[in-house]
Amino acid sequence: MSRVLLVAGGNPSDWPTIEPATYDYFVGIDRGCLHLLEADLPLQLAVGDFDSLSREEYHFVQETAETLIQAPAEKDDTDTQLALQEALQRFPQAEMTIIGATGGRIDHLLANLWLPFEPRFQGVLRQIRLCDRQNSIQYYAPGSYIVPKEPDKEYLAYCCLTPVENLTLRRSKYLLTNQDVPYPTSYASNEFIEEAAAFSFDAGMIAVIQSKDK
Amino acid sequence: MSRVLLVAGGNPSDWPTIEPATYDYFVGIDRGCLHLLEADLPLQLAVGDFDSLSREEYHFVQETAETLIQAPAEKDDTDTQLALQEALQRFPQAEMTIIGATGGRIDHLLANLWLPFEPRFQGVLRQIRLCDRQNSIQYYAPGSYIVPKEPDKEYLAYCCLTPVENLTLRRSKYLLTNQDVPYPTSYASNEFIEEAAAFSFDAGMIAVIQSKDK
Repeated sequence: MSRVLLVAGGNPSDWPTIEPATYDYFVGIDRGCLHLLEADLPLQLAVGDFDSLSREEYHFVQETAETLIQAPAEKDDTDTQLALQEALQRFPQAEMTIIGATGGRIDHLLANLWLPFEPRFQGVLRQIRLCDRQNSIQYYAPGSYIVPKEPDKEYLAYCCLTPVENLTLRRSKYLLTNQDVPYPTSYASNEFIEEAAAFSFDAGMIAVIQSKDK
Repeated sequence: MSRVLLVAGGNPSDWPTIEPATYDYFVGIDRGCLHLLEADLPLQLAVGDFDSLSREEYHFVQETAETLIQAPAEKDDTDTQLALQEALQRFPQAEMTIIGATGGRIDHLLANLWLPFEPRFQGVLRQIRLCDRQNSIQYYAPGSYIVPKEPDKEYLAYCCLTPVENLTLRRSKYLLTNQDVPYPTSYASNEFIEEAAAFSFDAGMIAVIQSKDK
């Protein structure tokens, strides 16, 4: 499966460690285009309204990007929604890792966190991952799953983004059995006890967050 | 109405500007107790399991706090839930401002963001406010509201924490009329056009976030 890195405009000091060889395609989102180039990474697709860039910065992005998609400044989609959609049109099976999408403004963070609710992304929610220096977020529809531990992370959280039915947590420090969760709830600060944890649920959507202290 | 400041363990560099005279009572939450004292603020109530503190730090907090509530390390409540509950028992009518509750680990941020869903806090959700350097978050149950602009903020967001029915946004740059919102959605990057905006909705819960760039 190919891997796409999407870089939104958040501060690069919040990025996780990036191994360029891990990714097959690099997408810059608005100011994230500059951050990609400043990190000596390729800019294969540039997406945004670019109203956060100066005229010089915009020209630099325009000249450097292999492909540029200019969005109108006043639109219904956010730049990140648009970039994810464009990336999925090009690589429908790829794993989509989004960085630069957390930190700072919480209205932006929530818009990014909730991307997989949109009908156009719900069918590919397992392909979407949000990452920053301390967190790695993956999304799950109802079913039964194994969660492999990421080597650099300490904590495991099951964040119910909606009401959830029949949640069972296995193979982790704290357990639950057939729990109905009536409102959005973050079961935070759980821990792995072996190389993978396991969980299952029957309705709703869960974000599994692996994290570490600074 | 009296005002209570609750300080959780997040990095003080993310705090908003604190005017001590604004608050009538100061609550430290675990490592937040130290942060309060380091900022030369009073520590009237200390709550937590204090497992994030060294023995010396713990003794310092113990000797300085007017009242200390020691929670067990393995418990269902988070330290922040416990602290909010204790503060509400003492000041049931007070405005509760929580700082140090964002940034860093997103499982913690979500647990704090979703506090007002809990039955014990739902009845007082209008009294709860989460703040950091860039964001101010307030909570709304169905109804019709005026939102006064905070002088230092630029952006206005209506974050639907649940499905929402019949959402109408008035007196702001972007408007909505009787919109049903089928899943959690962040209507981010709206703006005030006068000193207050207005909105109404019939079902669900909304967090209104006023924010600014760094």
